[in-house]
Amino acid sequence: MSKLRVNSFALSLDGYGAGPRQDAENPLGVGGRALHEWAFATRTFRKIFGGDGGSTGIDDEFSAAGFANVGAWILGRNMFGPIRGPWPDEAWKGWWGDNPPYHVPVFVLTHHPRASITMAGGTSFHFVTDGIHAALERARGAAKGQDVRLGGGVATIQQYLRAGLVEELHLAIAPVLLGSGERLFAGLDALELGYRCVRHVTTSSVTHVVLARSA
Amino acid sequence: MSKLRVNSFALSLDGYGAGPRQDAENPLGVGGRALHEWAFATRTFRKIFGGDGGSTGIDDEFSAAGFANVGAWILGRNMFGPIRGPWPDEAWKGWWGDNPPYHVPVFVLTHHPRASITMAGGTSFHFVTDGIHAALERARGAAKGQDVRLGGGVATIQQYLRAGLVEELHLAIAPVLLGSGERLFAGLDALELGYRCVRHVTTSSVTHVVLARSA
Repeated sequence: MSKLRVNSFALSLDGYGAGPRQDAENPLGVGGRALHEWAFATRTFRKIFGGDGGSTGIDDEFSAAGFANVGAWILGRNMFGPIRGPWPDEAWKGWWGDNPPYHVPVFVLTHHPRASITMAGGTSFHFVTDGIHAALERARGAAKGQDVRLGGGVATIQQYLRAGLVEELHLAIAPVLLGSGERLFAGLDALELGYRCVRHVTTSSVTHVVLARSA
Repeated sequence: MSKLRVNSFALSLDGYGAGPRQDAENPLGVGGRALHEWAFATRTFRKIFGGDGGSTGIDDEFSAAGFANVGAWILGRNMFGPIRGPWPDEAWKGWWGDNPPYHVPVFVLTHHPRASITMAGGTSFHFVTDGIHAALERARGAAKGQDVRLGGGVATIQQYLRAGLVEELHLAIAPVLLGSGERLFAGLDALELGYRCVRHVTTSSVTHVVLARSA
Protein backbone atom coordinates (compact mmCIF):
# COMPACT_ATOMS: atom_id res chain seq x y z
CA MET A 1 0.00 0.00 0.00
CA SER A 2 1.27 3.45 -0.90
CA LYS A 3 2.01 5.41 2.27
CA LEU A 4 1.83 9.13 2.87
CA ARG A 5 4.96 9.98 4.79
CA VAL A 6 7.06 12.87 6.01
CA ASN A 7 10.84 12.52 5.96
CA SER A 8 13.70 14.59 7.27
CA PHE A 9 11.42 17.27 8.62
CA ALA A 10 13.63 19.31 10.92
CA LEU A 11 12.55 20.95 14.16
CA SER A 12 14.40 23.28 16.48
CA LEU A 13 14.70 22.54 20.20
CA ASP A 14 11.89 24.98 20.80
CA GLY A 15 9.65 23.16 18.32
CA TYR A 16 9.83 25.30 15.18
CA GLY A 17 9.82 23.70 11.73
CA ALA A 18 10.79 26.91 9.97
CA GLY A 19 12.00 30.33 10.92
CA PRO A 20 9.88 33.48 10.75
CA ARG A 21 9.55 35.89 7.80
CA GLN A 22 10.10 33.59 4.82
CA ASP A 23 11.09 35.45 1.68
CA ALA A 24 13.12 34.94 -1.48
CA GLU A 25 16.38 35.23 0.46
CA ASN A 26 15.19 33.01 3.31
CA PRO A 27 13.29 30.06 1.84
CA LEU A 28 13.33 28.39 5.27
CA GLY A 29 12.56 31.57 7.20
CA VAL A 30 15.10 33.59 9.13
CA GLY A 31 17.48 31.17 10.85
CA GLY A 32 15.71 28.18 9.34
CA ARG A 33 18.72 26.96 7.44
CA ALA A 34 20.36 25.91 10.70
CA LEU A 35 17.68 23.25 11.08
CA HIS A 36 18.93 21.50 7.97
CA GLU A 37 22.71 21.61 8.35
CA TRP A 38 22.71 17.92 9.31
CA ALA A 39 21.06 17.08 5.99
CA PHE A 40 23.12 19.43 3.83
CA ALA A 41 26.23 17.70 5.18
CA THR A 42 25.18 14.26 3.95
CA ARG A 43 26.33 12.49 0.82
CA THR A 44 22.72 12.21 -0.33
CA PHE A 45 22.19 15.98 -0.27
CA ARG A 46 25.57 16.76 -1.78
CA LYS A 47 24.73 14.46 -4.65
CA ILE A 48 21.27 15.99 -5.11
CA PHE A 49 22.83 19.39 -5.54
CA GLY A 50 25.53 18.11 -7.84
CA GLY A 51 28.36 17.91 -5.34
CA ASP A 52 30.74 15.23 -4.15
CA GLY A 53 31.64 13.92 -0.73
CA GLY A 54 29.41 14.39 2.27
CA SER A 55 28.82 12.27 5.34
CA THR A 56 27.75 8.67 5.35
CA GLY A 57 26.19 6.98 8.36
CA ILE A 58 22.90 7.50 10.12
CA ASP A 59 22.19 11.06 8.95
CA ASP A 60 22.81 10.00 5.39
CA GLU A 61 20.72 6.87 5.75
CA PHE A 62 17.75 8.96 6.88
CA SER A 63 18.31 11.46 4.07
CA ALA A 64 18.50 8.70 1.47
CA ALA A 65 15.47 6.87 2.86
CA GLY A 66 13.48 10.03 2.30
CA PHE A 67 14.01 9.72 -1.44
CA ALA A 68 13.60 5.93 -1.73
CA ASN A 69 10.34 4.52 -3.07
CA VAL A 70 8.81 7.97 -3.48
CA GLY A 71 6.50 8.22 -6.51
CA ALA A 72 5.11 11.70 -5.90
CA TRP A 73 5.42 14.65 -3.55
CA ILE A 74 2.95 17.06 -2.00
CA LEU A 75 4.12 20.56 -1.06
CA GLY A 76 2.41 23.49 0.54
CA ARG A 77 2.55 26.61 -1.51
CA ASN A 78 5.09 28.34 0.72
CA MET A 79 7.47 25.46 0.27
CA PHE A 80 7.14 26.01 -3.46
CA GLY A 81 7.84 29.71 -3.30
CA PRO A 82 7.60 33.04 -1.52
CA ILE A 83 4.76 34.42 -3.65
CA ARG A 84 1.37 34.86 -1.91
CA GLY A 85 -2.02 35.43 -3.52
CA PRO A 86 -2.77 34.95 -7.23
CA TRP A 87 0.18 34.01 -9.45
CA PRO A 88 1.34 37.24 -11.13
CA ASP A 89 2.77 35.29 -14.08
CA GLU A 90 4.38 31.94 -14.89
CA ALA A 91 7.91 33.03 -14.01
CA TRP A 92 8.28 31.39 -10.59
CA LYS A 93 9.11 27.71 -10.95
CA GLY A 94 10.22 26.83 -7.43
CA TRP A 95 13.38 27.40 -5.42
CA TRP A 96 15.37 24.69 -7.12
CA GLY A 97 16.30 25.83 -10.64
CA ASP A 98 15.57 24.01 -13.90
CA ASN A 99 16.22 20.52 -12.58
CA PRO A 100 14.57 20.24 -9.15
CA PRO A 101 15.57 17.42 -6.79
CA TYR A 102 12.21 15.60 -6.98
CA HIS A 103 12.33 13.74 -10.32
CA VAL A 104 8.68 12.73 -9.93
CA PRO A 105 5.35 14.59 -10.09
CA VAL A 106 4.95 17.20 -7.34
CA PHE A 107 1.52 18.43 -6.25
CA VAL A 108 1.46 21.96 -4.88
CA LEU A 109 -1.44 23.05 -2.67
CA THR A 110 -2.69 26.52 -3.56
CA HIS A 111 -5.88 28.52 -3.67
CA HIS A 112 -4.91 29.96 -7.03
CA PRO A 113 -5.10 27.89 -10.23
CA ARG A 114 -2.13 27.60 -12.50
CA ALA A 115 -1.14 25.34 -15.39
CA SER A 116 1.18 22.42 -14.71
CA ILE A 117 4.90 22.89 -15.39
CA THR A 118 7.27 20.25 -16.72
CA MET A 119 10.82 20.64 -15.51
CA ALA A 120 14.03 18.85 -16.40
CA GLY A 121 14.92 15.53 -14.80
CA GLY A 122 11.40 14.12 -14.49
CA THR A 123 9.97 16.70 -12.09
CA SER A 124 6.60 18.22 -12.90
CA PHE A 125 4.65 20.69 -10.77
CA HIS A 126 0.86 20.41 -10.59
CA PHE A 127 -1.24 22.99 -8.77
CA VAL A 128 -4.13 21.63 -6.73
CA THR A 129 -6.85 24.07 -5.69
CA ASP A 130 -9.42 21.66 -4.27
CA GLY A 131 -7.82 20.71 -1.00
CA ILE A 132 -5.61 18.19 0.72
CA HIS A 133 -7.71 15.10 -0.01
CA ALA A 134 -7.78 15.88 -3.74
CA ALA A 135 -4.03 16.47 -3.74
CA LEU A 136 -3.42 13.14 -2.01
CA GLU A 137 -5.65 11.31 -4.45
CA ARG A 138 -3.85 12.80 -7.43
CA ALA A 139 -0.46 12.15 -5.87
CA ARG A 140 -1.33 8.52 -5.12
CA GLY A 141 -2.46 8.09 -8.71
CA ALA A 142 0.78 9.55 -10.00
CA ALA A 143 2.91 7.52 -7.56
CA LYS A 144 1.79 4.22 -9.12
CA GLY A 145 2.05 2.20 -5.93
CA GLN A 146 5.09 3.97 -4.53
CA ASP A 147 4.81 6.22 -1.49
CA VAL A 148 3.81 9.86 -1.48
CA ARG A 149 6.17 12.17 0.40
CA LEU A 150 4.72 15.21 2.10
CA GLY A 151 7.37 17.91 2.05
CA GLY A 152 5.97 20.70 4.18
CA GLY A 153 5.72 23.32 5.44
CA VAL A 154 4.34 23.18 8.92
CA ALA A 155 0.78 24.25 8.04
CA THR A 156 0.53 21.62 5.32
CA ILE A 157 1.81 18.82 7.52
CA GLN A 158 -0.54 19.88 10.29
CA GLN A 159 -3.52 19.68 7.94
CA TYR A 160 -2.63 16.15 6.86
CA LEU A 161 -1.90 15.06 10.44
CA ARG A 162 -5.24 16.39 11.68
CA ALA A 163 -6.99 14.51 8.88
CA GLY A 164 -5.26 11.31 10.03
CA LEU A 165 -3.65 10.80 6.63
CA VAL A 166 0.06 10.65 7.50
CA GLU A 167 1.29 7.12 8.17
CA GLU A 168 4.84 7.98 9.18
CA LEU A 169 6.70 11.09 10.21
CA HIS A 170 10.47 11.29 10.48
CA LEU A 171 11.55 14.35 12.43
CA ALA A 172 15.09 15.57 12.93
CA ILE A 173 15.50 17.65 16.08
CA ALA A 174 18.41 20.01 15.57
CA PRO A 175 20.35 21.41 18.53
CA VAL A 176 19.41 25.01 17.82
CA LEU A 177 16.88 27.50 19.10
CA LEU A 178 14.84 29.53 16.62
CA GLY A 179 12.88 31.61 19.11
CA SER A 180 9.97 32.14 16.74
CA GLY A 181 8.53 30.74 13.55
CA GLU A 182 6.05 27.97 12.83
CA ARG A 183 5.62 25.31 15.46
CA LEU A 184 4.76 21.82 14.25
CA PHE A 185 2.89 20.69 17.37
CA ALA A 186 1.01 23.95 18.02
CA GLY A 187 -2.63 23.11 18.65
CA LEU A 188 -2.02 19.53 17.61
CA ASP A 189 -2.47 16.59 19.98
CA ALA A 190 -0.28 14.01 18.26
CA LEU A 191 -0.97 11.44 20.96
CA GLU A 192 -4.73 11.69 20.56
CA LEU A 193 -4.28 11.45 16.79
CA GLY A 194 -2.76 8.04 17.42
CA TYR A 195 0.94 8.74 16.91
CA ARG A 196 3.69 7.12 18.94
CA CYS A 197 7.44 7.38 18.79
CA VAL A 198 8.59 4.12 17.20
CA ARG A 199 12.24 4.97 16.63
CA HIS A 200 14.75 7.28 18.26
CA VAL A 201 18.33 7.46 17.09
CA THR A 202 20.83 10.21 17.50
CA THR A 203 24.02 11.41 15.89
CA SER A 204 26.43 14.16 16.75
CA SER A 205 24.35 16.50 14.56
CA VAL A 206 20.76 15.77 15.27
CA THR A 207 18.19 13.52 16.97
CA HIS A 208 16.14 11.44 14.57
CA VAL A 209 12.66 10.47 15.67
CA VAL A 210 10.11 8.43 13.79
CA LEU A 211 6.44 8.80 14.69
CA ALA A 212 3.86 6.37 13.38
CA ARG A 213 0.20 5.74 13.95
CA SER A 214 -0.44 2.86 16.26
CA ALA A 215 -4.23 3.19 16.21
CA MET B 1 29.37 33.44 41.53
CA SER B 2 26.33 31.45 42.52
CA LYS B 3 24.34 30.48 39.41
CA LEU B 4 20.64 29.94 39.01
CA ARG B 5 20.31 26.79 36.94
CA VAL B 6 17.81 24.22 35.76
CA ASN B 7 18.92 20.59 35.55
CA SER B 8 17.38 17.43 34.19
CA PHE B 9 14.24 19.19 33.11
CA ALA B 10 12.53 16.73 30.78
CA LEU B 11 10.51 17.62 27.70
CA SER B 12 8.46 15.46 25.38
CA LEU B 13 9.00 15.48 21.62
CA ASP B 14 6.01 17.77 21.32
CA GLY B 15 7.50 20.19 23.83
CA TYR B 16 5.66 19.46 27.06
CA GLY B 17 7.42 19.63 30.41
CA ALA B 18 4.59 17.96 32.28
CA GLY B 19 1.42 16.13 31.43
CA PRO B 20 -2.06 17.57 31.90
CA ARG B 21 -4.29 17.27 35.01
CA GLN B 22 -1.75 17.03 37.79
CA ASP B 23 -3.20 15.56 40.99
CA ALA B 24 -2.10 13.55 44.00
CA GLU B 25 -1.85 10.36 41.87
CA ASN B 26 -0.09 12.12 38.99
CA PRO B 27 2.51 14.51 40.41
CA LEU B 28 3.94 14.95 36.89
CA GLY B 29 0.56 15.16 35.19
CA VAL B 30 -1.04 12.35 33.22
CA GLY B 31 1.66 10.58 31.24
CA GLY B 32 4.34 12.84 32.68
CA ARG B 33 6.26 10.04 34.34
CA ALA B 34 7.41 8.81 30.93
CA LEU B 35 9.47 11.99 30.57
CA HIS B 36 11.60 10.97 33.51
CA GLU B 37 12.21 7.26 32.92
CA TRP B 38 15.77 8.05 31.78
CA ALA B 39 16.47 9.68 35.15
CA PHE B 40 14.71 7.09 37.30
CA ALA B 41 16.95 4.46 35.69
CA THR B 42 20.19 6.12 36.80
CA ARG B 43 22.32 5.20 39.76
CA THR B 44 21.96 8.74 41.10
CA PHE B 45 18.17 8.51 41.25
CA ARG B 46 18.16 4.97 42.61
CA LYS B 47 20.41 6.11 45.41
CA ILE B 48 18.27 9.17 46.14
CA PHE B 49 15.27 6.97 46.65
CA GLY B 50 17.18 4.48 48.74
CA GLY B 51 17.80 1.84 46.06
CA ASP B 52 20.82 0.11 44.61
CA GLY B 53 22.09 -0.33 41.07
CA GLY B 54 20.98 1.90 38.22
CA SER B 55 22.76 3.02 35.11
CA THR B 56 26.06 4.79 34.98
CA GLY B 57 27.23 6.81 31.98
CA ILE B 58 25.94 10.01 30.45
CA ASP B 59 22.40 9.91 31.84
CA ASP B 60 23.78 9.34 35.29
CA GLU B 61 26.41 12.05 34.89
CA PHE B 62 23.72 14.59 34.04
CA SER B 63 21.55 13.41 36.94
CA ALA B 64 24.44 13.64 39.38
CA ALA B 65 25.55 17.04 38.08
CA GLY B 66 22.09 18.32 38.92
CA PHE B 67 22.75 17.69 42.59
CA ALA B 68 26.37 18.83 42.71
CA ASN B 69 27.22 22.25 44.19
CA VAL B 70 23.55 23.04 44.87
CA GLY B 71 23.04 25.09 48.02
CA ALA B 72 19.33 25.79 47.68
CA TRP B 73 16.36 25.01 45.46
CA ILE B 74 13.41 27.01 44.20
CA LEU B 75 10.17 25.21 43.36
CA GLY B 76 6.85 26.36 42.02
CA ARG B 77 3.96 25.51 44.23
CA ASN B 78 2.63 22.79 41.95
CA MET B 79 5.94 21.03 42.10
CA PHE B 80 5.58 21.06 45.87
CA GLY B 81 2.08 19.64 45.85
CA PRO B 82 -1.35 19.27 44.27
CA ILE B 83 -3.13 21.68 46.65
CA ARG B 84 -4.31 24.98 45.15
CA GLY B 85 -5.42 28.13 46.97
CA PRO B 86 -4.90 28.77 50.71
CA TRP B 87 -3.27 25.96 52.69
CA PRO B 88 -6.10 24.11 54.46
CA ASP B 89 -3.70 22.95 57.21
CA GLU B 90 -0.07 22.03 57.76
CA ALA B 91 -0.47 18.38 56.71
CA TRP B 92 0.99 18.51 53.19
CA LYS B 93 4.77 18.42 53.29
CA GLY B 94 5.64 17.70 49.69
CA TRP B 95 5.56 14.59 47.51
CA TRP B 96 8.71 13.08 48.96
CA GLY B 97 8.02 11.79 52.48
CA ASP B 98 9.86 12.71 55.69
CA ASN B 99 13.32 12.84 54.14
CA PRO B 100 13.04 14.68 50.81
CA PRO B 101 15.85 14.37 48.23
CA TYR B 102 16.97 18.02 48.54
CA HIS B 103 19.02 18.11 51.77
CA VAL B 104 19.27 21.91 51.54
CA PRO B 105 16.80 24.79 51.99
CA VAL B 106 14.00 24.78 49.40
CA PHE B 107 12.05 27.94 48.58
CA VAL B 108 8.49 27.36 47.40
CA LEU B 109 6.72 30.08 45.44
CA THR B 110 3.15 30.55 46.57
CA HIS B 111 0.55 33.29 46.99
CA HIS B 112 -0.45 31.88 50.37
CA PRO B 113 1.74 32.33 53.44
CA ARG B 114 2.75 29.37 55.53
CA ALA B 115 5.33 28.73 58.24
CA SER B 116 8.61 27.07 57.26
CA ILE B 117 8.93 23.31 57.73
CA THR B 118 12.07 21.46 58.78
CA MET B 119 12.31 17.96 57.36
CA ALA B 120 14.77 15.14 57.99
CA GLY B 121 18.09 15.00 56.15
CA GLY B 122 18.74 18.74 55.97
CA THR B 123 15.79 19.75 53.81
CA SER B 124 13.67 22.69 54.90
CA PHE B 125 10.74 24.22 53.02
CA HIS B 126 10.24 27.98 53.06
CA PHE B 127 7.21 29.61 51.50
CA VAL B 128 7.83 32.80 49.57
CA THR B 129 4.86 35.02 48.82
CA ASP B 130 6.59 38.09 47.45
CA GLY B 131 7.64 36.87 44.03
CA ILE B 132 10.45 35.30 42.05
CA HIS B 133 13.10 37.92 42.76
CA ALA B 134 12.55 37.66 46.51
CA ALA B 135 12.71 33.88 46.30
CA LEU B 136 15.97 34.03 44.39
CA GLU B 137 17.48 36.46 46.86
CA ARG B 138 16.55 34.26 49.80
CA ALA B 139 17.78 31.14 48.00
CA ARG B 140 21.11 32.75 47.13
CA GLY B 141 21.53 33.78 50.74
CA ALA B 142 20.83 30.26 51.93
CA ALA B 143 23.08 28.70 49.26
CA LYS B 144 26.18 30.38 50.73
CA GLY B 145 28.00 30.68 47.42
CA GLN B 146 26.79 27.43 45.92
CA ASP B 147 24.34 27.40 43.02
CA VAL B 148 20.58 27.64 43.25
CA ARG B 149 18.69 24.96 41.36
CA LEU B 150 15.32 25.85 39.91
CA GLY B 151 13.21 22.71 39.92
CA GLY B 152 10.06 23.62 38.05
CA GLY B 153 7.40 23.36 36.93
CA VAL B 154 7.02 24.94 33.54
CA ALA B 155 5.33 28.17 34.68
CA THR B 156 8.02 28.81 37.28
CA ILE B 157 10.87 28.22 34.86
CA GLN B 158 9.20 30.46 32.29
CA GLN B 159 8.97 33.29 34.80
CA TYR B 160 12.65 33.08 35.64
CA LEU B 161 13.64 32.76 31.97
CA ARG B 162 11.60 35.83 31.02
CA ALA B 163 13.26 37.76 33.81
CA GLY B 164 16.67 36.78 32.41
CA LEU B 165 17.69 35.14 35.67
CA VAL B 166 18.53 31.58 34.56
CA GLU B 167 22.19 31.10 33.65
CA GLU B 168 21.98 27.51 32.47
CA LEU B 169 19.23 25.13 31.49
CA HIS B 170 19.78 21.41 31.01
CA LEU B 171 16.87 19.83 29.15
CA ALA B 172 16.34 16.15 28.49
CA ILE B 173 14.19 15.48 25.44
CA ALA B 174 12.50 12.14 25.89
CA PRO B 175 11.32 10.10 22.89
CA VAL B 176 7.66 10.27 23.84
CA LEU B 177 4.65 12.31 22.84
CA LEU B 178 2.41 13.77 25.54
CA GLY B 179 -0.16 15.40 23.29
CA SER B 180 -1.10 18.03 25.85
CA GLY B 181 0.18 19.57 29.05
CA GLU B 182 2.45 22.49 29.77
CA ARG B 183 4.80 23.58 27.04
CA LEU B 184 8.11 25.07 28.13
CA PHE B 185 8.64 27.26 25.07
CA ALA B 186 5.05 28.49 24.69
CA GLY B 187 5.11 32.24 24.26
CA LEU B 188 8.81 32.31 25.06
CA ASP B 189 11.46 33.48 22.60
CA ALA B 190 14.51 31.76 24.03
CA LEU B 191 16.72 33.09 21.27
CA GLU B 192 15.75 36.69 21.91
CA LEU B 193 16.31 36.11 25.63
CA GLY B 194 19.90 35.34 24.73
CA TYR B 195 20.00 31.56 25.07
CA ARG B 196 21.99 29.29 22.78
CA CYS B 197 22.49 25.55 22.70
CA VAL B 198 26.00 25.01 24.05
CA ARG B 199 25.92 21.24 24.47
CA HIS B 200 24.06 18.41 22.80
CA VAL B 201 24.66 14.81 23.76
CA THR B 202 22.46 11.82 23.36
CA THR B 203 22.02 8.38 24.84
CA SER B 204 19.73 5.52 23.96
CA SER B 205 17.17 6.96 26.38
CA VAL B 206 17.14 10.68 25.84
CA THR B 207 18.72 13.73 24.18
CA HIS B 208 20.50 16.02 26.60
CA VAL B 209 20.68 19.67 25.66
CA VAL B 210 22.30 22.50 27.58
CA LEU B 211 21.15 26.06 26.93
CA ALA B 212 23.10 28.99 28.26
CA ARG B 213 22.95 32.74 27.90
CA SER B 214 25.51 34.06 25.49
CA ALA B 215 24.46 37.67 25.78
